[in-house]
Amino acid sequence: MEGLMQRLPLSIPMIVRHAERMHSRKTVTTRTDDGVKVATFAQVLERARRLATALRSIGVGPDDRVATFCANHQEHLEAYVAVPSMGSILHTLNIRLFDKDLAHIVEHAQDSVVIVDKTLWPAWEKVASRVSCVRCTIVVDDATGSGPDNTLDYEALLAEATPSGFDEDIPEHQAAALCYTSGTTGLPKGVLYSHRSNVLHSMTVCLSGSLGLHESDVVLALVPMFHANAWGLPYACLMAGADLVMAGRHTAPEILTGLLVQHQVTFAAGVPTIWQGMLQSMTRAKGQLGKLERILCGGSAVPLGLQQAYHREVGVRLIQGWGMTESSPIASLSFPLRAHDGLAPPELDGVLNSQGRPPLGVEVRLVDEAGKLLPWDGRSVGEILLRGNWVASGYYLDAAPEKFSDGWLRTGDVASIDPDGYIRICDRIKDLVKSGGEWISSVQIETSLMSHPDIVEAAVVAVAHPRWGERPLACVVPRADAKGRLSKDILLDYLRPLVAKWWLPDDIIFLDQLPRTSVGKFDKKALRERFKDHPLPS
Amino acid sequence: MEGLMQRLPLSIPMIVRHAERMHSRKTVTTRTDDGVKVATFAQVLERARRLATALRSIGVGPDDRVATFCANHQEHLEAYVAVPSMGSILHTLNIRLFDKDLAHIVEHAQDSVVIVDKTLWPAWEKVASRVSCVRCTIVVDDATGSGPDNTLDYEALLAEATPSGFDEDIPEHQAAALCYTSGTTGLPKGVLYSHRSNVLHSMTVCLSGSLGLHESDVVLALVPMFHANAWGLPYACLMAGADLVMAGRHTAPEILTGLLVQHQVTFAAGVPTIWQGMLQSMTRAKGQLGKLERILCGGSAVPLGLQQAYHREVGVRLIQGWGMTESSPIASLSFPLRAHDGLAPPELDGVLNSQGRPPLGVEVRLVDEAGKLLPWDGRSVGEILLRGNWVASGYYLDAAPEKFSDGWLRTGDVASIDPDGYIRICDRIKDLVKSGGEWISSVQIETSLMSHPDIVEAAVVAVAHPRWGERPLACVVPRADAKGRLSKDILLDYLRPLVAKWWLPDDIIFLDQLPRTSVGKFDKKALRERFKDHPLPS
Repeated sequence: MEGLMQRLPLSIPMIVRHAERMHSRKTVTTRTDDGVKVATFAQVLERARRLATALRSIGVGPDDRVATFCANHQEHLEAYVAVPSMGSILHTLNIRLFDKDLAHIVEHAQDSVVIVDKTLWPAWEKVASRVSCVRCTIVVDDATGSGPDNTLDYEALLAEATPSGFDEDIPEHQAAALCYTSGTTGLPKGVLYSHRSNVLHSMTVCLSGSLGLHESDVVLALVPMFHANAWGLPYACLMAGADLVMAGRHTAPEILTGLLVQHQVTFAAGVPTIWQGMLQSMTRAKGQLGKLERILCGGSAVPLGLQQAYHREVGVRLIQGWGMTESSPIASLSFPLRAHDGLAPPELDGVLNSQGRPPLGVEVRLVDEAGKLLPWDGRSVGEILLRGNWVASGYYLDAAPEKFSDGWLRTGDVASIDPDGYIRICDRIKDLVKSGGEWISSVQIETSLMSHPDIVEAAVVAVAHPRWGERPLACVVPRADAKGRLSKDILLDYLRPLVAKWWLPDDIIFLDQLPRTSVGKFDKKALRERFKDHPLPS
Repeated sequence: MEGLMQRLPLSIPMIVRHAERMHSRKTVTTRTDDGVKVATFAQVLERARRLATALRSIGVGPDDRVATFCANHQEHLEAYVAVPSMGSILHTLNIRLFDKDLAHIVEHAQDSVVIVDKTLWPAWEKVASRVSCVRCTIVVDDATGSGPDNTLDYEALLAEATPSGFDEDIPEHQAAALCYTSGTTGLPKGVLYSHRSNVLHSMTVCLSGSLGLHESDVVLALVPMFHANAWGLPYACLMAGADLVMAGRHTAPEILTGLLVQHQVTFAAGVPTIWQGMLQSMTRAKGQLGKLERILCGGSAVPLGLQQAYHREVGVRLIQGWGMTESSPIASLSFPLRAHDGLAPPELDGVLNSQGRPPLGVEVRLVDEAGKLLPWDGRSVGEILLRGNWVASGYYLDAAPEKFSDGWLRTGDVASIDPDGYIRICDRIKDLVKSGGEWISSVQIETSLMSHPDIVEAAVVAVAHPRWGERPLACVVPRADAKGRLSKDILLDYLRPLVAKWWLPDDIIFLDQLPRTSVGKFDKKALRERFKDHPLPS
């Protein structure tokens, strides 16, 4: 028997209705070249309704992909609202990818319209020359000077358009947004979010036990809006009525810190590199950050030293978030529990520096290579599987059955989980070194090597070995002034007390730099390929 | 095009999985006759799984109604979990109703199994003799002595049963629970909650901008578990991992206050009468309530004086919640906004004493008699309509089309809404007095009359009038020692500065007591009937 409850689709238009009714006076602030631009939610949402009319007028229909090639700013938020609310699909492009990867993604998605920042035009032009699907380009006026030829002006389009009704009856499983993974193991794959997945994910972001966004919050979203749904923050701010601050195309640490101070930000989110870069300016601003309660840090592993430095120098704790494009992205958060009240710093560090616990709506399994469930004992190590309403069930035009197992996403991350549910990632499964039937974590050796004062970067990859199957090979970049005094033996002596004896790399190679992927991660695939025949000392 | 996201039903088993995995060590505490009983979530949920097996073993199948006739305690929570999770329907009976109303409800719902507290057996026996559908009665052992004949013992059933799997694939629109309205305007009506409505309602209860239940909370649920879903607290506590404290059959203010102190409760919820009764003991306990952050008060209008007294004497603010059985029940909450920071007490009182703002997921409309939308200007008065995923779309076996209008629930409450979305209820629509085409609020005249020190109770009803259509008639109960000195003229003089001149009652009748409904509200229907031919002075 079915319940007798109303059935309203969980949709972006539902979030819009709530924001328009309940939070119309809250604000969106964008850093521009000559100051800041502030608009109320009412204004932003009215402009989003104009944008929908404008997009319809240039022929955008249901299911059509509208891409953005933009920094974080008000217009990008307007696209986040308008495109899904008219039944079309928002495709956020990563502005830092190589042209050829972008061209592949745009062609694969068959984007018909692209919204581009004027300052990103030179980068976009190179992509545009490689693709044939884009029939219309809209330019956001984020710098002085006239726009390029054969494009539409964002503001001119909005000025001509009347505010449009959104599709209030849109089915909740309708696709809302498309975001491609960075594809470190192959071609980028498209994750197709639904209205329902976005609403439930954003609700979880607003749960008190999760990020807890609240009407009294002022949120600085430093995570790019093309980065996995901007961690859910755009929709979550509209839901919660939190003021949203964005940096536009500005990345200088002093400017970002200035935004935190001037707007009395309470919650900020960004990748570790950003917070690393801002540490000095944040330390100087310490006394002026009175409202800053929490910083979310994710996208790659958060160095413990960075967390400790922020706690010590800035007086704010970095919370680690873990997830991936396929999980919308929030899959776990390293908030402490009430049981940790009064915990001493070393033990508390162990909590905060974990990948954290899954929030309501995300289910986690730990399995061995045969798919057998492993216990959450803090010691057993296996692959993490994810399940939930905001976890991908497949990729856009790419079934990729190897990534999905009986309704669960295979994350490719290898971890332990402790009895409280805190996840601790050891490595990517493809980066593990399998030596004599046992796993060696490349990440742990890398972390240990990088803790040496003379080492800037380190990457550890597996090399085939006749007896052990695989053995670890370390590639390191020494500091410029340390080249003469470092040697393989010195580093092995340094590692000896830090890792198990049989984890010690069989060889250490000194390089001037490590190859990187288009999103800036160490390109271990390239290293494995380059050193696949490297002779290991017997 | 549909998104490519996993689809897991929003269901009670989903909440159970989360609670078992993430919050197994959190606790449920029940006040018993000789102390308290404490169980972990793991224990409670394991017992709920046993209860499901036991219920199956006595023939309970999908869609079967299992009623509870219980106080707030651990076993009641176990039924909240087990019954919906096995695909059956939990029917919470209001233990304070008259036998004949209960019998009607039980027969209407066709409850086949009832779980009854041993101490409530005498009350239940009278109901049982009037109904024929109940084929099995399970007795919860909440007092010493043996149970009645021909019943099953709850603990014995659980001891024999093995923990059962729940229905993880239950469709989210499946009915989960049934709760009848008190039926002040006619026969009680059944509201049939779905799994989806319960999950979304409980998520909203845990939103930071709503009640914000959190893992660090200790929740005292004084609201009865038969009262509209216990305001969502049982499922919300399991979701959030908040410790739950319940008072069992104990209602003495000192005992309830003792629970707040002993268990360092952070959040408590109950009806105004309860908080009124506890004011003295709470005032005495003031210094020991250090963790108590928020009190939710709802179920009937919260007197401003009570809110002021708690703020002044106890140091805690009462937040008003508004809603109804049909809205699961949370439809609005009177939390202040950031814009109210630093507001002086009189203005802040105006916020806290309103019915508050609808949270995410509840949509509100204000309409006039013709159904035309009225503005949220704080002055326009009309009926409130509600829409949302936890708002009823009909009643169980009773279409009641007059209550539903184009997908919206007609609440029967008349109110204004201010530009910030704060609702201020004036009256029930059926209690309004329509004089010369204008509405007079019976509630406002009653409140004014009851502010007179010699008046204990007052009810104002409409009486037919040849010229004005209707005019207000006041029925008052004076203090025993004031009978001699009160008169109609004295009260009219007292009212004159408090209400509009044309609102003054045409007559005032002195009674020894006012008739009440089974849930203790003034029975205005009875008063209207009794005085329908009362001659009004011309």
